[in-house]
Amino acid sequence: MQRIKLGMMGGGIGAFIGDAHRRGARITNKYDLIGGVFDVDYERSKEFAKYEGISLDRCYATLEDFIKGELALPKEERIEAVSIVTPNNLHYPMAKMLLENGFHLICEKPMTMTVEEAEDLEKIVNETGLTFALLHTYTGYPMVRQIREMVNKGELGDIQRIDAKYYQGWINPIAHGGKISEVWRLNPKAAGVSSCMGDIGVHAFNLIEYTTGLEVTEVLADLSKVVSEVELDLDGTVLIRTNGNAKGVLRSSQMAIGEENNLSIAIYGSKAGVKWSQENPNYLKILSDDKPVQTMKPAHPYNSNFAAISHTMPPGHPEGIYEAIANIYSGAAKQIKGEEIISGEYPTVVDGVRGMKFIHNVVKSSSQNGEWIKL
Amino acid sequence: MQRIKLGMMGGGIGAFIGDAHRRGARITNKYDLIGGVFDVDYERSKEFAKYEGISLDRCYATLEDFIKGELALPKEERIEAVSIVTPNNLHYPMAKMLLENGFHLICEKPMTMTVEEAEDLEKIVNETGLTFALLHTYTGYPMVRQIREMVNKGELGDIQRIDAKYYQGWINPIAHGGKISEVWRLNPKAAGVSSCMGDIGVHAFNLIEYTTGLEVTEVLADLSKVVSEVELDLDGTVLIRTNGNAKGVLRSSQMAIGEENNLSIAIYGSKAGVKWSQENPNYLKILSDDKPVQTMKPAHPYNSNFAAISHTMPPGHPEGIYEAIANIYSGAAKQIKGEEIISGEYPTVVDGVRGMKFIHNVVKSSSQNGEWIKL
Amino acid sequence: MQRIKLGMMGGGIGAFIGDAHRRGARITNKYDLIGGVFDVDYERSKEFAKYEGISLDRCYATLEDFIKGELALPKEERIEAVSIVTPNNLHYPMAKMLLENGFHLICEKPMTMTVEEAEDLEKIVNETGLTFALLHTYTGYPMVRQIREMVNKGELGDIQRIDAKYYQGWINPIAHGGKISEVWRLNPKAAGVSSCMGDIGVHAFNLIEYTTGLEVTEVLADLSKVVSEVELDLDGTVLIRTNGNAKGVLRSSQMAIGEENNLSIAIYGSKAGVKWSQENPNYLKILSDDKPVQTMKPAHPYNSNFAAISHTMPPGHPEGIYEAIANIYSGAAKQIKGEEIISGEYPTVVDGVRGMKFIHNVVKSSSQNGEWIKL
Amino acid sequence: MQRIKLGMMGGGIGAFIGDAHRRGARITNKYDLIGGVFDVDYERSKEFAKYEGISLDRCYATLEDFIKGELALPKEERIEAVSIVTPNNLHYPMAKMLLENGFHLICEKPMTMTVEEAEDLEKIVNETGLTFALLHTYTGYPMVRQIREMVNKGELGDIQRIDAKYYQGWINPIAHGGKISEVWRLNPKAAGVSSCMGDIGVHAFNLIEYTTGLEVTEVLADLSKVVSEVELDLDGTVLIRTNGNAKGVLRSSQMAIGEENNLSIAIYGSKAGVKWSQENPNYLKILSDDKPVQTMKPAHPYNSNFAAISHTMPPGHPEGIYEAIANIYSGAAKQIKGEEIISGEYPTVVDGVRGMKFIHNVVKSSSQNGEWIKL
Repeated sequence: MQRIKLGMMGGGIGAFIGDAHRRGARITNKYDLIGGVFDVDYERSKEFAKYEGISLDRCYATLEDFIKGELALPKEERIEAVSIVTPNNLHYPMAKMLLENGFHLICEKPMTMTVEEAEDLEKIVNETGLTFALLHTYTGYPMVRQIREMVNKGELGDIQRIDAKYYQGWINPIAHGGKISEVWRLNPKAAGVSSCMGDIGVHAFNLIEYTTGLEVTEVLADLSKVVSEVELDLDGTVLIRTNGNAKGVLRSSQMAIGEENNLSIAIYGSKAGVKWSQENPNYLKILSDDKPVQTMKPAHPYNSNFAAISHTMPPGHPEGIYEAIANIYSGAAKQIKGEEIISGEYPTVVDGVRGMKFIHNVVKSSSQNGEWIKL
Repeated sequence: MQRIKLGMMGGGIGAFIGDAHRRGARITNKYDLIGGVFDVDYERSKEFAKYEGISLDRCYATLEDFIKGELALPKEERIEAVSIVTPNNLHYPMAKMLLENGFHLICEKPMTMTVEEAEDLEKIVNETGLTFALLHTYTGYPMVRQIREMVNKGELGDIQRIDAKYYQGWINPIAHGGKISEVWRLNPKAAGVSSCMGDIGVHAFNLIEYTTGLEVTEVLADLSKVVSEVELDLDGTVLIRTNGNAKGVLRSSQMAIGEENNLSIAIYGSKAGVKWSQENPNYLKILSDDKPVQTMKPAHPYNSNFAAISHTMPPGHPEGIYEAIANIYSGAAKQIKGEEIISGEYPTVVDGVRGMKFIHNVVKSSSQNGEWIKL
Repeated sequence: MQRIKLGMMGGGIGAFIGDAHRRGARITNKYDLIGGVFDVDYERSKEFAKYEGISLDRCYATLEDFIKGELALPKEERIEAVSIVTPNNLHYPMAKMLLENGFHLICEKPMTMTVEEAEDLEKIVNETGLTFALLHTYTGYPMVRQIREMVNKGELGDIQRIDAKYYQGWINPIAHGGKISEVWRLNPKAAGVSSCMGDIGVHAFNLIEYTTGLEVTEVLADLSKVVSEVELDLDGTVLIRTNGNAKGVLRSSQMAIGEENNLSIAIYGSKAGVKWSQENPNYLKILSDDKPVQTMKPAHPYNSNFAAISHTMPPGHPEGIYEAIANIYSGAAKQIKGEEIISGEYPTVVDGVRGMKFIHNVVKSSSQNGEWIKL
Repeated sequence: MQRIKLGMMGGGIGAFIGDAHRRGARITNKYDLIGGVFDVDYERSKEFAKYEGISLDRCYATLEDFIKGELALPKEERIEAVSIVTPNNLHYPMAKMLLENGFHLICEKPMTMTVEEAEDLEKIVNETGLTFALLHTYTGYPMVRQIREMVNKGELGDIQRIDAKYYQGWINPIAHGGKISEVWRLNPKAAGVSSCMGDIGVHAFNLIEYTTGLEVTEVLADLSKVVSEVELDLDGTVLIRTNGNAKGVLRSSQMAIGEENNLSIAIYGSKAGVKWSQENPNYLKILSDDKPVQTMKPAHPYNSNFAAISHTMPPGHPEGIYEAIANIYSGAAKQIKGEEIISGEYPTVVDGVRGMKFIHNVVKSSSQNGEWIKL
């Protein structure tokens, strides 16, 4: 086994999401983190490298230095793939430059700030043939992959109704506690056009398209700031229509008091339905017209192949979100190495474009007091 | 204890809903069923009376006969209250005539076929001062009443988001099995302007207003027939806005395969949230910013007074839907006898008017491809 | 339909269990309560009769008066069946006298105070051919009946392990709050040889034999008073062995803080397993070697016949403990009227004998520091 | 940060448990696996080393070679700690030799084959002062650590009842499918004196002592082979008594059809009770006399300090069994580096001795038809 030489943009001392990416990568055992630009402050970046046991030669002051330095190395020593875990507004320029210089990417979401940027990245990825994995974490869960395969094999029949939600409550005490300005996600300059839909609603959207294989064709939204001092949506409901005539709804809130990270989906088809919830990811309920409700769990022979390869422990040994991240990192590694992959093993740049369209059109629909807008 | 002399319109042999009313009434021990018009077919009506042990003298051929016969009796022998459990289209004319002749009523929902009829009944009830109880069954559950009191006392703070759903799946095999014409609920003449929203969505609507004390001021709906041969909605989502600036969503389907009778509500306030589900009615989850989730159950000293009187067994002895019906019948009995009642002990004619407005405006909004309509 | 003329011993004003019996009987619509001895205090007994609308002619001062008075009536007016809901120590003498005078009985548990009394009643029932129903309430739940039929049809294969529990916590605050003497169940004279096993453990024992059809052949127990001032067991574990070589365990406590009425059973066979819990009685989990866990609910075509007749509402409309009582009252009514009944429709005098043997031998085993004792 | 140089005994190609240890170690980022004896077959061992990217210089043919080779290296290059993941019978001789040569150990359970061996290891660990971590995985879960701290702070009051279980079902199809001889756990030579209690019952035992801080002082067991061809216990129940006068029960089975890895514990104290289940490890139920049931989850300010450091993600992001293993590896690393640790951060050699005593005495009690035996 040859591990992939991995670099990282951002993710230095105290960075939560960078740590999550590194744990996921380590679980796979398919990557070695050997360099990067871990902080805008070069000293702090070096401090992190030292802590992490990374050679200071590979700890660069800027992205430009990184590219120059790595390209100067013989190919067999060079970093092959880079994780981007910076603030959102840097995702696009960094991704663009890294792709143009031949690096594979694993990028934290949201992919970009605008639809145009997203489409630009899509074009570059297509032209270069490089691997671009977007970290829609929740697609890494075995039972989510089970749904995707069940739908794909027709086991649900025609999809009739889709019901997705993503509820969190962590902004409630902030919004009512007068600490709005301390949270960058509530600042349009840092967060973009949306808080709730941009940060979490888009995960629910991705989950809908990922599991059903359908495309959302139209949206109608009613978003809410809840607290008048806030500039962005903290809560909203989106009516959706898809190709194939399914309808549904996507609900999302960051003000749903007491909710932790409640991403859930229910899909009702003509032959069967499924229900899954992220906080209890190892349970998948299957509903039908005439049989008792079935509860599927990972690691059983009755699992689909894709679900089976996404869980390593025996039944009843719960795996969690780090393993979901690892599954996506693992899929990207297979792609980078040119191994055969299963459709959906990692979310792609196409998912990133879809997500940006969703966010922007949902905001637009709501600002027009609820117009149907084609995606 | 003097039991109330009860009559019944409809509910004869083989009638499911009539049986449910009678069980509920018997549980209370506050009613004696002693007469009625149990079937349009007089012979079958008498057959039922015989089976039930009701004197044939009090089994009438028509509503007119019933009124004439009962009014001819001395007051102390006369039927005082009547349960209406006929097909929907008879609710209004029968209720009107019975009220005008001085009978208290317990009426199965929907109250009427049109908003105008509903408003007419409201007027008559107000004029006569008679008791009119509408059987929105789910308001009879102790934990639903607990929510109502918690909101009322301000324990949830300002309501920020409301999320109600009512999913059933029983029409799915019918719709795909070519048996549409056999189901009267799918026939506009019998069911009115709506199937899904009229039959079950309206329960979710009632539950929202009952528990939160808010009024839904605007709705925007996207309904679906799902199967092209069907003339009425079988599925839909309704965006709602209320006075007090809460927003929310009401989801309903009769095509949600495998769902049984999944009426659920989540209410998120600034101080606390609650979640309740009809299929497991004795559990109420309380969410807050900083405490573990709490699960309330009936019959504990921590229950509100209204919840406490709505459950008779000790903790852990589950009561069910018949006891919820009994609670409503019991509330109506207290009103009829002039005893003090708690606000919400039975749904009233006002709830009936609200429900009809909901149904008609939701259908209208959807037919206009999603316009906001004021209720 | 001819309702059975029902009498009642005990159950007057303020009596919880008498009220539960009456509600159960009313739900069935198969009984009319028309007389009895509702209280040792005749004045209070008459007060109750008046409240309940029972003719004072049929409200007797003593059991002897009751028998004399009723036997003096023409057979078609006479009370046919009697519910015994007095304190425990009166069950046996009253049952004996009533049986000897030709009355069918529905008796609250425990049936008697001693094994000998129990066996005596069994003998009398066999000789008279009268109906004797013992209110082991939990056998009235549809999903419990479903288990019984599944085991009976061999769907579980050979039973390998049985795990039953009955946990309550209500005595914990009493035992630690110095109020022991206020609770009659903690007084050997009133409660007999056991508190925990006698009051609730015996229900778990009954549930084991009822569902599996096996006989417990040996027990080994370790009981505990927990609090030294108490004279009877408040907590205990019983190892069991059955015919057919199954083993298992029965756990019971009245000191399991925060538990309400947690009677649960798991049965593991060679082909399938089941799990059921009284607090959520409408769910039955089915486990197997190679399939997802299935959750059965009432009112589906996949239910066994016995489960099907034990639930009247459509799927998803929860019925509760009063309906379980009603199911037992209904079974007894069928027997009284000579209609065909299903095996297990009501618990019999044989269950009562088994229960008394269980209680006495468990106490004996524990007092011998854990000897295996044959039942 | 200086990573600990880690070696491994066993765990080569296809070894499930070795892989789990490595994942756990990698998640912590506190270890580098750099050598070992991965297989008895040296060629396969080297094959694994190559695959894993380990220098062949550090891949040894035998334990003796390993010790000789490592001790020959300068101290700063030398492997400091070794994971033992071989078959059970090698744990003791390898651990002994490694300790005697100055290596810290992380050892898979069971620690040894006999009580004497266990006590010998305890002696050596005490004499050498080396770190010895036993992988009782389940003590690594945050909510298990929460229980330990709550009990320790007296939040449960006096422990009155303990109820632990560990149910699996995977041997059921093997036992009934005639494949008994293919499973080494069913062979006394490989597995020792017990299958069910030795493999999984002992985890439940450890969990009891770990969470309550009590010592089990006496056991009485009834074990069962279930299938006559099997030589070891596959199922059993153990009555327990502890210091402090608590009583309880430990149930365990490998024949509980359809159970996956159902390790659960309920502890009832005089002030509060707790319930936890391994398959859903991020939920902890708290029961009390007078408050609603509370459900604690990780990553909240209300968590104890020990629970808090055992979960890295925000609330609602489930961590699983690999993270539990990582938590134990992390505790051992702190000990090895001489950092301050929290009591219970890793299970010790003392836990290993207790476990061996449990297994041997439970088997002895059962063979004497249920005698109480002091531990």
